[in-house]
Amino acid sequence: MRILFLGDIVGRSGRDAFVERVPGLRRDLALDLVVVNGENASHGFGLSPDMARAFLAAGADVITLGNHAWDRREIVPYLEEERRVIRPINFPPGTPGFGAVVVDVPGNRRALVVNAMGRLFMDPLDDPFRAIQAELAKHPLGRSVQATILDVHCEATSEKQAFGHSFDGMASLVIGTHTHVPTADHQILPGGTAYQTDAGMCGDFDSVIGMQKGGAALRFWRKMPGERLAPAEGEATLCGLFVETDDATGLATRVAPLRQGGRLSQTMP
Amino acid sequence: MRILFLGDIVGRSGRDAFVERVPGLRRDLALDLVVVNGENASHGFGLSPDMARAFLAAGADVITLGNHAWDRREIVPYLEEERRVIRPINFPPGTPGFGAVVVDVPGNRRALVVNAMGRLFMDPLDDPFRAIQAELAKHPLGRSVQATILDVHCEATSEKQAFGHSFDGMASLVIGTHTHVPTADHQILPGGTAYQTDAGMCGDFDSVIGMQKGGAALRFWRKMPGERLAPAEGEATLCGLFVETDDATGLATRVAPLRQGGRLSQTMP
Amino acid sequence: MRILFLGDIVGRSGRDAFVERVPGLRRDLALDLVVVNGENASHGFGLSPDMARAFLAAGADVITLGNHAWDRREIVPYLEEERRVIRPINFPPGTPGFGAVVVDVPGNRRALVVNAMGRLFMDPLDDPFRAIQAELAKHPLGRSVQATILDVHCEATSEKQAFGHSFDGMASLVIGTHTHVPTADHQILPGGTAYQTDAGMCGDFDSVIGMQKGGAALRFWRKMPGERLAPAEGEATLCGLFVETDDATGLATRVAPLRQGGRLSQTMP
Amino acid sequence: MRILFLGDIVGRSGRDAFVERVPGLRRDLALDLVVVNGENASHGFGLSPDMARAFLAAGADVITLGNHAWDRREIVPYLEEERRVIRPINFPPGTPGFGAVVVDVPGNRRALVVNAMGRLFMDPLDDPFRAIQAELAKHPLGRSVQATILDVHCEATSEKQAFGHSFDGMASLVIGTHTHVPTADHQILPGGTAYQTDAGMCGDFDSVIGMQKGGAALRFWRKMPGERLAPAEGEATLCGLFVETDDATGLATRVAPLRQGGRLSQTMP
Ligand SMILES: [Fe+2]
Ligand SMILES: [Fe+2]
Ligand SMILES: [Fe+2]
Ligand SMILES: [Fe+2]
Ligand SMILES: [Fe+2]
Ligand SMILES: [Fe+2]
Ligand SMILES: [Fe+2]
Ligand SMILES: [Fe+2]
Repeated sequence: MRILFLGDIVGRSGRDAFVERVPGLRRDLALDLVVVNGENASHGFGLSPDMARAFLAAGADVITLGNHAWDRREIVPYLEEERRVIRPINFPPGTPGFGAVVVDVPGNRRALVVNAMGRLFMDPLDDPFRAIQAELAKHPLGRSVQATILDVHCEATSEKQAFGHSFDGMASLVIGTHTHVPTADHQILPGGTAYQTDAGMCGDFDSVIGMQKGGAALRFWRKMPGERLAPAEGEATLCGLFVETDDATGLATRVAPLRQGGRLSQTMP
Repeated sequence: MRILFLGDIVGRSGRDAFVERVPGLRRDLALDLVVVNGENASHGFGLSPDMARAFLAAGADVITLGNHAWDRREIVPYLEEERRVIRPINFPPGTPGFGAVVVDVPGNRRALVVNAMGRLFMDPLDDPFRAIQAELAKHPLGRSVQATILDVHCEATSEKQAFGHSFDGMASLVIGTHTHVPTADHQILPGGTAYQTDAGMCGDFDSVIGMQKGGAALRFWRKMPGERLAPAEGEATLCGLFVETDDATGLATRVAPLRQGGRLSQTMP
Repeated sequence: MRILFLGDIVGRSGRDAFVERVPGLRRDLALDLVVVNGENASHGFGLSPDMARAFLAAGADVITLGNHAWDRREIVPYLEEERRVIRPINFPPGTPGFGAVVVDVPGNRRALVVNAMGRLFMDPLDDPFRAIQAELAKHPLGRSVQATILDVHCEATSEKQAFGHSFDGMASLVIGTHTHVPTADHQILPGGTAYQTDAGMCGDFDSVIGMQKGGAALRFWRKMPGERLAPAEGEATLCGLFVETDDATGLATRVAPLRQGGRLSQTMP
Repeated sequence: MRILFLGDIVGRSGRDAFVERVPGLRRDLALDLVVVNGENASHGFGLSPDMARAFLAAGADVITLGNHAWDRREIVPYLEEERRVIRPINFPPGTPGFGAVVVDVPGNRRALVVNAMGRLFMDPLDDPFRAIQAELAKHPLGRSVQATILDVHCEATSEKQAFGHSFDGMASLVIGTHTHVPTADHQILPGGTAYQTDAGMCGDFDSVIGMQKGGAALRFWRKMPGERLAPAEGEATLCGLFVETDDATGLATRVAPLRQGGRLSQTMP
């Protein structure tokens, strides 16, 4: 299976880049599955149903979220009706929406996507390791699903790497989101799982994690509330990871970063 | 000036890689200045004077530290005598050692290196932004020094990017350390300062931030003290950034990542 | 039922005060049930089996723990054999020991004691609210048990108060531990549950949370590792709360603080 | 000097209690100096100039603030004109307002009041220990001022106690605020400084730190944004500490808690 995972879409610049480029990428890379994190699409905070629809229409198969899941409240009812948009699985019982989804992939294949949140330097939540473990047990890789993608939304590199090693051999891809900076440690772990600590964002990299740099940097100098942060408006770099898997095992056979547009060094799988 | 900055050396694997490869890199890349972060050299925790001497002998011009600065206590008196090994500048008044150093560079040039620690998700320390600002004022770039390198040792990508933008145009390079994962966002900021959110480590990447993956991952599953963590022993990837600067202005003209050895994708400036 | 809850025993000074005074308190106050937190008994860090035996012999019916549960490793096998010593209930599945215990009380009565850890400003753990809720459902107050005591080991006052209100009417007493300072907000909540934000410690109050004040205060001035902290050795104040309950309902009818010995203002129920 | 310090005023209930009771307390206790923390007066978030004026008119000599200092933006210009309202001293250089004030006290006496914020589990700020030390050096106790009061606004009991011991003998009173729960550890430290870990709040104690208990407790069960929190509206308990000092030395001779009104056990100096 040919898979593209793209990191957090930030603001208009990120949305535009996604909608403009993904149709071409699907075709040129012959993609079977596109997953993108959408938690910052709406002015940096949350995702509106309209934006989700636009991403799905442009070629996303699944949209994941994170700590900004609820910043746009209209997403709550939408998550119940649109199963392809998922929120972190380890929110407490009773939380609206779902933390995992199985989608059909051309060729009579199926893929599981799980979204989970780390806990180091983040809010207290249920155990993401056991939550993922339980979900994987329901959909064994290489049997009921041909690919499994885990979006682990964490602050700390150590926690993301612990996810990678804990599920090495049980998922096609473990990839981090949330820090908005792509890492250069893409690899296939010894058990066959593709891994990258952070996918990076789809946003303007002349910024502070996608937000306008002046105001955002000032927050580290002054400790007074300022104007509300707004997304930077320069051209976005679309950041993500391409993974090719073996449908028989669901494990990765090739991994290559993608960075298109904007300020970052360009690379194409 | 031709500069190489290498990230946190972790354990024996990282030390060996540094000592074996840096002499060749100095020659092949015609380097004028090599700076490396050494806070995890000693079994993952701290730096001993012997190790520091070995790194200096192998071609390091300056060694920086971080939150693990004091894990090996023998470093305390050594920092007073060996000015080329520096600890974060924003430790409180009275802390042993120095947070910045000016070193001579062949061709009658001089370079300032500053080490600072972020505060987001880290220990309470003095303001690193104002501490850097004061140090830069003492050694204006392009006048009393031909290059200035800021090693910003932080957990959060936002804080590192705030350092980059705050000192864009005032330093040759702002580079992060501490997360042990190289980022792929190397760039020259609009003001002329080279920037990368994290240099990555010099260590084995089949690990959790350089430590053996089994025990380190288990810590996220269990909440009981286990055995002491030990560094992973596979071949290290030497991770860092090459920067070329204009001696007249001290600003960057070229930036290119370096990843040599071990599991990560290989790249040479 | 006449209940005394005492806060964290810190070091020798706290151990001595407990062992010397509790037999007399049991008699003078005609106590039916004594619960004490023992997480700092051993030089400030953990609880040894010998100490636990001494506390049980001196009149403790149940000993609770907290984030220092595992500082003395010998406690691990002991927790499996001595059910009256419990550790926080919301450690992950597979953790040794138990998070709750039902003990017999003279007069053919039974009492449930639960120990739980908060998550605000503390380590990531499972949800303590739902863990307590499940335990309470197994042992309904006023039916299978005549008293229920919840020791909520938290940093933040807000989280402790949230426990109090969440379980008001379902427990005889919700009492906090961990901050080592007794609070003066003892009260019976509207639903009939006795409440106090923190029981305080059994330790020397001329100290920093029971540890020698010189070294402990210095840690806020300097950011270098110093000598290992040791418990303060002045006379301890035994700090806790007396609660009288109605056996028919299990709810509180009277609540009064106890502070005996040492520097704090003295009060006796 | 006869001093009353009152903890954080929360919402209308706390404001009403302060304005109604303080005039009588000034008279009955023959108070020379009244200091109160006002950071939560405005619906739980910040302090408006009108409220500050009302507190000053009702008998406050100095009003301190904390992490909520800037929640009501109108306070910013007001802090420049009304020197009796102070914000934490360890905000960064350039922050509006002042962190300390010397006020006249009847009988030709003067008192220094300093407000400082802790850093453990709180935002990164400048070093509060050295900031207080510098302020105390300007106004030596028993010489240029007859009383010195330090309001240390902290989360952690350890940090507050470190303030107490660090400045024991150099201040009349070191008292904590921020946790909104009065502690029962009032004492005169060996060097002569009165101390209490937290003054408690002036607010309704059938609440979560002064806010309505239903919504506030729910936040620990659910991890979704809810309605904005509002202050609880039951009768407030006025919580604070009375200290009597020797004008010759500025040190404390007597310390006694005050709790008046509302749900908490009542006590009057
Ligand atoms: Fe994000
Ligand atoms: Fe996020
Ligand atoms: Fe490091
Ligand atoms: Fe570090
Ligand atoms: Fe504790
Ligand atoms: Fe404790
Ligand atoms: Fe506060
Ligand atoms: Fe407050």
